[in-house]
Amino acid sequence: MAKKRSKHVYFFGGGMTEGRADMKPLLGGKGANLAEMGNIGVPVPPGFTITTEACDYYSKHDKNYPPGAMDQVKKALAKLERLMGKKLGDSNDPLLVSVRSGAAVSMPGMMDTVLNLGLNDESVLGFIHKTGNERTGWDSYRRFINMFGDVVMGPGTGLKHEHFEEELGEMKKKYKAKVDTDLSAEQLKELCVIYKKVYKEHVGKKFPEDPMEQLRHSIDAVFGSWDTPRAVKYRQLNKITGLLGTAVNVQVMVFGNMGEISGTGVGFTRNPATGAREPMGEYLVNAQGEDVVAGIRTPSHIEDMPKERNPVWRNVHKQLLGIMKKLEKHYKDMQDVEFTIQEGELFMLQTRTGKRTGLAATTVACDMVDEGLIRPAEAISRIEGDHLNQLLFPIFDPKEESAAKKKGLDKAYGLPAGPGAAAGKVVFSADDAEAAANRDEGARVILVRRDTSPEDVGGMWAAQGILTSTGGMTSHAAVVARGWGKCCVAGAGDLNIDYKRKQIAIGSIVIKEGQYISLNGATGAVYCEDKKGVDIPTTASPVVAAVVHGAAWAKKHAIFKIYHRISDWADQFRKIGVRTNADTPKDAAAARAFGAEGIGLTRTEHMFFEGDRILAVRQFILAENTDERRKAINKLLPYQRKDFEGIFKAMDGLPVTIRLLDPPLHEFVPHDAAGQKEMARVLGVSQKKVADRVKALHEFNPMRGHRGCRLSITYPELCVMQTRAIIEAACNVAKKGIRVLPEIMVPLAGTKAEFDYLEQIIRQTADNTIKQKNSRARKKKVKVKYTVGTMIEIPRACTVADKIAEKAEFFSFGTNDLTQMGYGYSRDDAGVFLPDYIDKKILPGDPFETLDQEGIGQLVEMGISKGRTTRPDLKVGICGEHGGEPSSVKFCHRAGMNYVSCSPYRVPIARLAAAQAVIDESKN
Amino acid sequence: MAKKRSKHVYFFGGGMTEGRADMKPLLGGKGANLAEMGNIGVPVPPGFTITTEACDYYSKHDKNYPPGAMDQVKKALAKLERLMGKKLGDSNDPLLVSVRSGAAVSMPGMMDTVLNLGLNDESVLGFIHKTGNERTGWDSYRRFINMFGDVVMGPGTGLKHEHFEEELGEMKKKYKAKVDTDLSAEQLKELCVIYKKVYKEHVGKKFPEDPMEQLRHSIDAVFGSWDTPRAVKYRQLNKITGLLGTAVNVQVMVFGNMGEISGTGVGFTRNPATGAREPMGEYLVNAQGEDVVAGIRTPSHIEDMPKERNPVWRNVHKQLLGIMKKLEKHYKDMQDVEFTIQEGELFMLQTRTGKRTGLAATTVACDMVDEGLIRPAEAISRIEGDHLNQLLFPIFDPKEESAAKKKGLDKAYGLPAGPGAAAGKVVFSADDAEAAANRDEGARVILVRRDTSPEDVGGMWAAQGILTSTGGMTSHAAVVARGWGKCCVAGAGDLNIDYKRKQIAIGSIVIKEGQYISLNGATGAVYCEDKKGVDIPTTASPVVAAVVHGAAWAKKHAIFKIYHRISDWADQFRKIGVRTNADTPKDAAAARAFGAEGIGLTRTEHMFFEGDRILAVRQFILAENTDERRKAINKLLPYQRKDFEGIFKAMDGLPVTIRLLDPPLHEFVPHDAAGQKEMARVLGVSQKKVADRVKALHEFNPMRGHRGCRLSITYPELCVMQTRAIIEAACNVAKKGIRVLPEIMVPLAGTKAEFDYLEQIIRQTADNTIKQKNSRARKKKVKVKYTVGTMIEIPRACTVADKIAEKAEFFSFGTNDLTQMGYGYSRDDAGVFLPDYIDKKILPGDPFETLDQEGIGQLVEMGISKGRTTRPDLKVGICGEHGGEPSSVKFCHRAGMNYVSCSPYRVPIARLAAAQAVIDESKN
Repeated sequence: MAKKRSKHVYFFGGGMTEGRADMKPLLGGKGANLAEMGNIGVPVPPGFTITTEACDYYSKHDKNYPPGAMDQVKKALAKLERLMGKKLGDSNDPLLVSVRSGAAVSMPGMMDTVLNLGLNDESVLGFIHKTGNERTGWDSYRRFINMFGDVVMGPGTGLKHEHFEEELGEMKKKYKAKVDTDLSAEQLKELCVIYKKVYKEHVGKKFPEDPMEQLRHSIDAVFGSWDTPRAVKYRQLNKITGLLGTAVNVQVMVFGNMGEISGTGVGFTRNPATGAREPMGEYLVNAQGEDVVAGIRTPSHIEDMPKERNPVWRNVHKQLLGIMKKLEKHYKDMQDVEFTIQEGELFMLQTRTGKRTGLAATTVACDMVDEGLIRPAEAISRIEGDHLNQLLFPIFDPKEESAAKKKGLDKAYGLPAGPGAAAGKVVFSADDAEAAANRDEGARVILVRRDTSPEDVGGMWAAQGILTSTGGMTSHAAVVARGWGKCCVAGAGDLNIDYKRKQIAIGSIVIKEGQYISLNGATGAVYCEDKKGVDIPTTASPVVAAVVHGAAWAKKHAIFKIYHRISDWADQFRKIGVRTNADTPKDAAAARAFGAEGIGLTRTEHMFFEGDRILAVRQFILAENTDERRKAINKLLPYQRKDFEGIFKAMDGLPVTIRLLDPPLHEFVPHDAAGQKEMARVLGVSQKKVADRVKALHEFNPMRGHRGCRLSITYPELCVMQTRAIIEAACNVAKKGIRVLPEIMVPLAGTKAEFDYLEQIIRQTADNTIKQKNSRARKKKVKVKYTVGTMIEIPRACTVADKIAEKAEFFSFGTNDLTQMGYGYSRDDAGVFLPDYIDKKILPGDPFETLDQEGIGQLVEMGISKGRTTRPDLKVGICGEHGGEPSSVKFCHRAGMNYVSCSPYRVPIARLAAAQAVIDESKN
Repeated sequence: MAKKRSKHVYFFGGGMTEGRADMKPLLGGKGANLAEMGNIGVPVPPGFTITTEACDYYSKHDKNYPPGAMDQVKKALAKLERLMGKKLGDSNDPLLVSVRSGAAVSMPGMMDTVLNLGLNDESVLGFIHKTGNERTGWDSYRRFINMFGDVVMGPGTGLKHEHFEEELGEMKKKYKAKVDTDLSAEQLKELCVIYKKVYKEHVGKKFPEDPMEQLRHSIDAVFGSWDTPRAVKYRQLNKITGLLGTAVNVQVMVFGNMGEISGTGVGFTRNPATGAREPMGEYLVNAQGEDVVAGIRTPSHIEDMPKERNPVWRNVHKQLLGIMKKLEKHYKDMQDVEFTIQEGELFMLQTRTGKRTGLAATTVACDMVDEGLIRPAEAISRIEGDHLNQLLFPIFDPKEESAAKKKGLDKAYGLPAGPGAAAGKVVFSADDAEAAANRDEGARVILVRRDTSPEDVGGMWAAQGILTSTGGMTSHAAVVARGWGKCCVAGAGDLNIDYKRKQIAIGSIVIKEGQYISLNGATGAVYCEDKKGVDIPTTASPVVAAVVHGAAWAKKHAIFKIYHRISDWADQFRKIGVRTNADTPKDAAAARAFGAEGIGLTRTEHMFFEGDRILAVRQFILAENTDERRKAINKLLPYQRKDFEGIFKAMDGLPVTIRLLDPPLHEFVPHDAAGQKEMARVLGVSQKKVADRVKALHEFNPMRGHRGCRLSITYPELCVMQTRAIIEAACNVAKKGIRVLPEIMVPLAGTKAEFDYLEQIIRQTADNTIKQKNSRARKKKVKVKYTVGTMIEIPRACTVADKIAEKAEFFSFGTNDLTQMGYGYSRDDAGVFLPDYIDKKILPGDPFETLDQEGIGQLVEMGISKGRTTRPDLKVGICGEHGGEPSSVKFCHRAGMNYVSCSPYRVPIARLAAAQAVIDESKN
């Protein structure tokens, strides 16, 4: 943490801006960007930012502010009053301010905002006096009481927005008002009195008339909201760590609710769903910002702004587009802006990097390179692994979807707010979505809501897709779904959602809870049918279709072209190799098409299960001496050889690392009486013999038991058979002119002696096999160059890597096991405490997902550096699941590995991350 | 390994000695000592030594000799022929040689010896011609054929000593000879022909007449015997590692079988059983060395030598004692010598450091300091942990033993050949002894044999005690048993052992297999009764009686005085502290009496099992919320507090490290239906609830599961209760004026956050508890200074020890778990492959017994150095079982630990090893 700063408040606007864009960690994204906008001459309402450091202090010091902070707030407020010529709480011309949160990373909807602060029974009159707009005055006041009560005092008292909404409803009923705006100034004034009563009822104290008290409570509420469960959960789901807290932005209020030429809106400088190069956005006339973000009223599109009755809007539209262009050019990235028009004058309230789908992220990155705005290195470093991954998401099977369309099942359309396609059973609450997922891991549900709120994030995460009836591209549902790359159709206004009856009505059509519907997140189409399910099958994305299946249509597809371009760029930068984990020729071929430069891990165990093979394995297990064991296991030789031939062919010219048998033998025998009886019958032995052997194989801690190289040391015949299968296969395909580079890998070595023992057997077997092969076929001798290496997955192996490397020609880090043993966790059991550990911030995340660079990473680095001490050209890779996780790939690059290996569909992401690792380095 | 040497043969004797005593690694113990004796003027038969390096080469190069070695052998042989004026195989005056093994460490009986080499049909006549002794000639020849056939050619062909013995028996029967010496020269000549037939029958080739062929085969056999299973097993049992192989000593033969003034014997410069300062030994007139060592004939005592008829023996006796004294003075240690008298001329064949019992080792060491021969440092460094341990061995309960004596149950006496007392069921073969031990770990058997041979070592190891009817203090049984510190009575000549009937007869008394007998290894008494078992109960050694029970008689006992003296010396040298692992006041007090300077580990889990406590623990486990859990666990508080009070009292003034609960919760619940039903009944819940909870607690890999600090993080109420119990106990005893230094230890921390989370709870709880205690009793405020630290037993913890040490005040290495996780072994399961690993030399030994310094040691060193980077005064200890194992203690000293902690009875050994660590350092 940086040294203690004594400055806690930074002023912006009015030509007196103190902050900068690069002060995000301290001022939060919003504060830093308000300052930056102030610096480049974009009109922002002036104000000041209280730092994230102050929030951190507040959180750690029992809700006290750092010494001097409140004085600085008062000074900044005085400055603001001087600048605006208004005074907080003034009964003639009061200053009103907003109080907003703003952390360094955007967390939509998670943080609380208070508007119209400074209003009280006196200043509301001053406000009306000054603006001459009585209705706006009372409307603002009732909104402020509502917001202050709900957002600021609600968490401690249970006072909620609904409590006010109820009264609003009553009032509307009473005066037969259809919408809020039908209420007159007098009626709103009446509502203010009622609202204050509601406030007192719940809070137990009178609504505070002192604006400084209002401000202090509001700052407290923003700081306090940093640690609310929902904020914590959002950060967890999004893996946001390392932040101090949120900043607080106190800013002069501007009013979008001052009548016909006032309004408020949000916009994107490009399309955040598709990346298309067109500014887009939504606004509401005569409204405050919360109305847009909450998605309660469906807003108008920015391009329709010039069509508003008042010609002022034409100017505003022009000015807005100009500012958006300026901002994008300044920040060199797609911006997400908030703006307000107060009586024809445009103010920018916020600009920030826009969240986007994978398609948009990749498209914008490519386009901006073409536009000369950024270079490929910058484009690459902006694309997240998940973005690229989204290009690989399944879409609806084109035929099936067009058939559905022909049948007219596309009953409704909303905004294409989140990528991909999804089908599932309708549920109407986040809790139901979570419960369904908890009941059944494979459950597919579509969460259908009028709109979503931060409380729903758990259920949104659990659902296949999200469908809302209100709200636009910037509504909560849209923003969150896009952030996750989850399929979402937002603002499908034709939907009539009835939470009580648990049904959707679209005209006369009714969709009940539990019925299947299908969403296309790229077109916004909602496929459904009256009382019947519509479950359109999905199919591979154009990228997968082009790469894996070689489909001609897909190769022409824009998405494929973008994928291709980005991957090509990545390869120009990256230094570390990318291989794949593949056990079958099919997987190997797919991975190669995705750019894999070899196989880093072929597991041989699945080859033991197929068809009749398991019988031979079980004979091997039941055998009573080496001879019997050898006979049994050698039955597998032809099968294994064939498996390897297929893989070698698919990987012609590229290295293939094959791991010898790893799992404990008890994984190959049935553990139930019926299975044992059947096994006994098939093998013609007594059931007791089977049962006894299974019992003998039982282990208290199987992951630390008789497995890996320990098996082959006890039963060298296993290792001999596998080596023969590998080398015979290699010779056979080599004869056909295929270039084969087998790398034989010993699993789970913890000592030099273990490795050496097997290395000797492997070399002897391999050399004899090659000799035999060549002695039979005299015409043309094949040359097969193989190497022998080991997995480094035992902590001790890292400490003696220098010794192991004396004979081992390569290392491949098995970081799954290394993490298990290094932490003393069992992946199978850790579920009992891991979630609690993450909740309690004891772990930053699941170490099986993202490699723990702090601790386990040290073991990896030790293994590499010790290994290279002995053998400077030691080839080093990783073949755990971390090999396809971007931050882990970057670590592997920094640690000096030669390659990472991951599952076929993660290869593009690994290539991207590998390139980013190089670009990151050049930045530092 | 040293650089390749080109000299493979070293000459000794005849004033041309090339070797020295300090060349043991190269020349073996025997070779180096023959050279040394040659150098200091002790008469040895000349010869030459082929190096251990040659053996290593032989073993690694498919039984080939290093280049040039055979030439050097031939040259040395020529030199020997010149020196002796005889020629190998000469038909007039042939040179005869012996070929003996000799590794750097003595391995009695394990290596093969060939005598009389050079005899053939011609040279036997030359031998007779020269010596004029026809009988000796043919006797030597038949012995040579026997030995060459059995020892040299036997391993490959199955030819055995018995095959020859049978023929000898037949011959004796035929000529009505009672003993071997009754056979005449002619009859022995006849036997030679028969022996050669036996040889050809089994070997398939004629007996080789060419002496060079005999020599080559014999060297091969010695080298080959290095890798025989029995030699390998002996080295394993005795943890002998790091040797290249055995040397071969080719030496001119001297004959103890040349008549009345010839003979052969062995001796010790002091008593190897008691350490008494008196030379002792045994010899046989007119015999060769093998007869003594094999224990077939009961020899005479050296002190009786002057009583032999021929007055030459008086001179020989005087000369022998003089040489033994000279040797002891030269080597400054008790010597074990072999000698031969050839026609009145004394030759020393071997001298080496004598194996001894713990009593002898400690007594000799103390005596030699008193004699001014050595200093205390040398005395300390000569005493092995096992030696000291033997002083703690149980002896027979004095009352019970004297009662048995009164009843006249001491039916026989043998030599007091191995320490301690033992009682058990009689078995008559090594296999039966091993089988009994395998069937039941607690089985007590006494192995009864006429004599033992190297094939028996497995069964000897398994037995409680060994009883033989022939052989002396230097017989195989005596030497091996003494080496192990195992109770042994040797050469009890009154025993008539009948292997077929499986019984012992002593006069008219019969003891059948399975009947109990009792052996006193210190007096040689054999207690038994006709057809009844005698199972005398054992009691504590004088050391234990004096230290633990404060028995007055024991404090005057010589053994206690020796123990005391050695421990005092040790404390003068050692720098590292010695603590104990103790869970009860009784253990704590005992350990303190043994010199423990505190408790390094108090486990709290056993405290959860006693009496009704388990009910509260089970209520805790079944509880459904924090409140219920807190209520349940707090029931344990008064019990735990009382436990701790007792321990604190016992450790007044010394630190006590208490570990918070460590094992997984499923260890506290019954896993069988009956137990669960009972638990449900007692706790008044449904059986299903119990069963469900037990099922939920199941873990696939429990040692990596929900245990250690993970438990207290999930259920902080556990940690709170334990901390309160500790601190309340500390306050309570502190009030009584007892100095209490509690160290609260968090188990299984792998990350800084885990430790910090609990550290905060512990400090808060502890400080509050002290405050509360003091607020109640206002008169006199107690001050309790506690520290909070952690066990380092997770590999990852070593890598982030610098961070953990920010808050942790001490580290205690839990090397059991660190070894499990570092190797990826499970102690519960490793039995499946560990023995095979040790057999195949993949591991030098069981890493749970002796700390693996190469790998796990690196993690320990990393943890210490990182921890001290942050906190230079970090207190560091070890509390695994390694803390009482000498070589591990030495490692801990070198690694810079502050203390080791071990079980109470290992404390003296740890003190000794700690002193040796310092002495070792000063030597290097």
